[in-house]
Amino acid sequence: MALIHIIEKFQPRNDEALLAKAEAAAPALHHSTHHPKTAWLGLPGRGGRLLPAGTLTPLEKGDTLVLDLGDHYVGTCRLTLTTRGSHPDAPAWLRLRFAEILDELYEAPEDYHGWVSSSWIQDERVHVDLLPGELALPRRYAFRYLAVEVLDTSPKYKLVVDELTVDATTSADDDALPQVRVTDPELDRVYRVGLRTLRSCMQREFEDGPKRDRRLWIGDLRLQALSNAASYRNMDLVRRCLYLFGGTRFPDGRVSACLFTQPEPAADDTWLFDYGLFYPVILEEYLRERPDPEALADLGPIALEQLHYALGLVGADGVVNETATANTFVDWQETMDKTACAQSILIYALGYGEALANRLRRALEAGELAAQRAALAKTARARFWDPARERVVSGGQENLASLVWMILAGVLTPQEADRALAQADELSKNGPMMTPYMHHYYITALLIAGRREQALGHIRYYWSSMIRAGADTFWEAWIPEHPDASPYGGRVINSYCHAWSCTPVYLLHTHFPELLASI
Amino acid sequence: MALIHIIEKFQPRNDEALLAKAEAAAPALHHSTHHPKTAWLGLPGRGGRLLPAGTLTPLEKGDTLVLDLGDHYVGTCRLTLTTRGSHPDAPAWLRLRFAEILDELYEAPEDYHGWVSSSWIQDERVHVDLLPGELALPRRYAFRYLAVEVLDTSPKYKLVVDELTVDATTSADDDALPQVRVTDPELDRVYRVGLRTLRSCMQREFEDGPKRDRRLWIGDLRLQALSNAASYRNMDLVRRCLYLFGGTRFPDGRVSACLFTQPEPAADDTWLFDYGLFYPVILEEYLRERPDPEALADLGPIALEQLHYALGLVGADGVVNETATANTFVDWQETMDKTACAQSILIYALGYGEALANRLRRALEAGELAAQRAALAKTARARFWDPARERVVSGGQENLASLVWMILAGVLTPQEADRALAQADELSKNGPMMTPYMHHYYITALLIAGRREQALGHIRYYWSSMIRAGADTFWEAWIPEHPDASPYGGRVINSYCHAWSCTPVYLLHTHFPELLASI
Repeated sequence: MALIHIIEKFQPRNDEALLAKAEAAAPALHHSTHHPKTAWLGLPGRGGRLLPAGTLTPLEKGDTLVLDLGDHYVGTCRLTLTTRGSHPDAPAWLRLRFAEILDELYEAPEDYHGWVSSSWIQDERVHVDLLPGELALPRRYAFRYLAVEVLDTSPKYKLVVDELTVDATTSADDDALPQVRVTDPELDRVYRVGLRTLRSCMQREFEDGPKRDRRLWIGDLRLQALSNAASYRNMDLVRRCLYLFGGTRFPDGRVSACLFTQPEPAADDTWLFDYGLFYPVILEEYLRERPDPEALADLGPIALEQLHYALGLVGADGVVNETATANTFVDWQETMDKTACAQSILIYALGYGEALANRLRRALEAGELAAQRAALAKTARARFWDPARERVVSGGQENLASLVWMILAGVLTPQEADRALAQADELSKNGPMMTPYMHHYYITALLIAGRREQALGHIRYYWSSMIRAGADTFWEAWIPEHPDASPYGGRVINSYCHAWSCTPVYLLHTHFPELLASI
Repeated sequence: MALIHIIEKFQPRNDEALLAKAEAAAPALHHSTHHPKTAWLGLPGRGGRLLPAGTLTPLEKGDTLVLDLGDHYVGTCRLTLTTRGSHPDAPAWLRLRFAEILDELYEAPEDYHGWVSSSWIQDERVHVDLLPGELALPRRYAFRYLAVEVLDTSPKYKLVVDELTVDATTSADDDALPQVRVTDPELDRVYRVGLRTLRSCMQREFEDGPKRDRRLWIGDLRLQALSNAASYRNMDLVRRCLYLFGGTRFPDGRVSACLFTQPEPAADDTWLFDYGLFYPVILEEYLRERPDPEALADLGPIALEQLHYALGLVGADGVVNETATANTFVDWQETMDKTACAQSILIYALGYGEALANRLRRALEAGELAAQRAALAKTARARFWDPARERVVSGGQENLASLVWMILAGVLTPQEADRALAQADELSKNGPMMTPYMHHYYITALLIAGRREQALGHIRYYWSSMIRAGADTFWEAWIPEHPDASPYGGRVINSYCHAWSCTPVYLLHTHFPELLASI
């Protein structure tokens, strides 16, 4: 997720007591050491030559060595460097490009001029003064491939990369994983790549993407928390993230859409209508997994505040207003009308809010929320549902996202949902879903509508297509029919290990248990 | 000095006992802290705007801030960085160019394609993940100017460089300096810039240039040692360098033309006929400054070995052979015939060798060296001196360097020297002197010939012209009539603080004491 919202003179409100609890729940990071499995001289797939195992190739000016770890890791690294020829009489000047997928190496970073900062491209230039020696890089990278380009040595010596050592980190504990496999091999591969994705994003927080932007975003967190509950079950990490959002809020009490934890926890000056509404959803889902009276007492009222704030954005006509719709994400589809989505997500979240209010023994408030929910659903049905054509229409548009969220909000009956979803492919033509995040909600809508085979087929189709295109971890954005699409103006900036794409872990584990077998 | 000589499978011979004594003589480095005196937004002289003192300018993508320390320093540095606007949501990506003179900032490093490694250009690209924060750079730089170019931030924030802090080092002790000034203001300025040059080159060794190549070269060392004796008088540093050369030799006992001290002391696989001959010169001059029986006993025999090796390169005709002339530096003049120079430098060095042999109480050897010297001088006079035309001719060429070294070797009488030097300007047209190193020897030849006013005038002319062209420290290479000349294929790679150019310190102090006054 990446968005640019700017509030002048933004003064977020930190609650140190809540942040202390967030810090207390911070996970230990597990470390593991990795080395390249294979190496090429030149770019693989672009004329590069696979080097025999154990080859130490002396590199001269202009040479590029590509090292392949064989899988995706997040961590720091160091290079052990030696030389051939005379004593080095000048520094080695290296360009180091870290890539999650090979395609990133095929694009020239200097050609990227999109709206997300090019500073995220993992592209370093380093001078090494002392050779032989070890080059320990101070930053963390998310990568499978490292391309070492020799910008210069000197005519007197060649450079040898003796070894690359990666110190990978994650707060995911492999020992906690359920010992299961998916009996369908293709879906098992999807399941494992999903686990790998989640694992790489689990650091001190649930990051949205360890390459970019690394922040904690609510929308991503919701899907990570679901998948985590079905796999690594690091519930303290979910607790930590909930406390972080609760502890770093807007002056008026809203939770931000995303937050920073470094140098100090701080809300970003970005609020999203739908993301704010997911806060009560995530809290309620967390409490369903693990009783936590303290978190309920601390965070439950904050979660309910989000609902009340959102309800304040419902107009006299019973429909969410422009402030709500203009700040609703749903998916990267710029021309999509989001009124039905925003209304539906409010309805959807109110269901979780009722549950929280009941947990807090606020029966009156629970009743109020239920009443609001019913009223909003009624308006939504009247406004957005065309019963004759069995279509959802939002702002004159028929789009798949509106249909999906009307189903998830329970505005349509399962039977209506089933019949309306028959038009999904056609609706997609009005604007293809761009993110695995949206695909996740599409699949849950299919499940509600009883279209289990179609849901499974879509998991297979969509996530497998990423694997066929080279994914070791699932991607931030992907349209199988438009492999070059990027919401950011260039694929080199895309995140290829992105939290919100890990949900086959949750979907397969929770909704298709019959496909799982012990290992 | 920079040269590319390569010997395959070179196995230098280290003497650990001598190297231990070199290490014991290693100086403590004096540290001092510095901050910019002025700052520009944009390049000064290229449309940049001088910023009022104390201004903290928020920088966005594409902006360049130039910080000026007001003088030349060698050291490490750190930047204190803050931001304006929203919380940084992406790293700051910076290009940092360190420059000894402004001209370096006007050239694009990527346009440099000369034969010296471009890795010496002080050009870094750095990602800063945590803001506000401190960016401490791990490498050492030689610079007065730092250009900070913002390659990217993000639309959400601007970068502010709150402070640049330079931790400068030198092994020169300002308190040890003679408290004198040169009564002529222009020459006083030359004297002070010379001191500054020497100071910046005095680190753990006498470096040839703290920007490039940083190594210890014998030719540079000789002139540094002379100037050091007339100023900072860090005699232990001279001792250290002599022991380093003695402790890291070629398998056949030759001292290398230059050596490395990191990671371990090691001779470069470069030998120069003239540089090898300066080893006994430097040792003898050191012993004249400070009695050191241990150094004499340890290094005297090694110094004499260099002379014997060089004498082995004299042909049956009494003239140095092709091996000698092909490995003689003298100056960066590619087409220059160096036979007379090589022969003369051997004669010159033999004089110092006799003195060393006498110190070692090797009377027989001293006599032998004296005899060889006389014979070589006789041959040189017969071969290279045209008494009718009062010209020196070497390999059919009349060049100034040959005349200079024939004078320094004492092959010509002072009267002959005086008359021959009347043609110096004309000889220069055959190939202008390129380095302050060669100009130094030219001036000493003028002094021998009794042309004191001309010598002083040449110091004023040559070294002042560098100051007028922007020098805070004197340069590696400089032809006043050809300011863009570089021996390396591009001025951006030149060293603008270079040891062998510091000699006005020695020349004024030693040869023009009447110009000095106490301060």
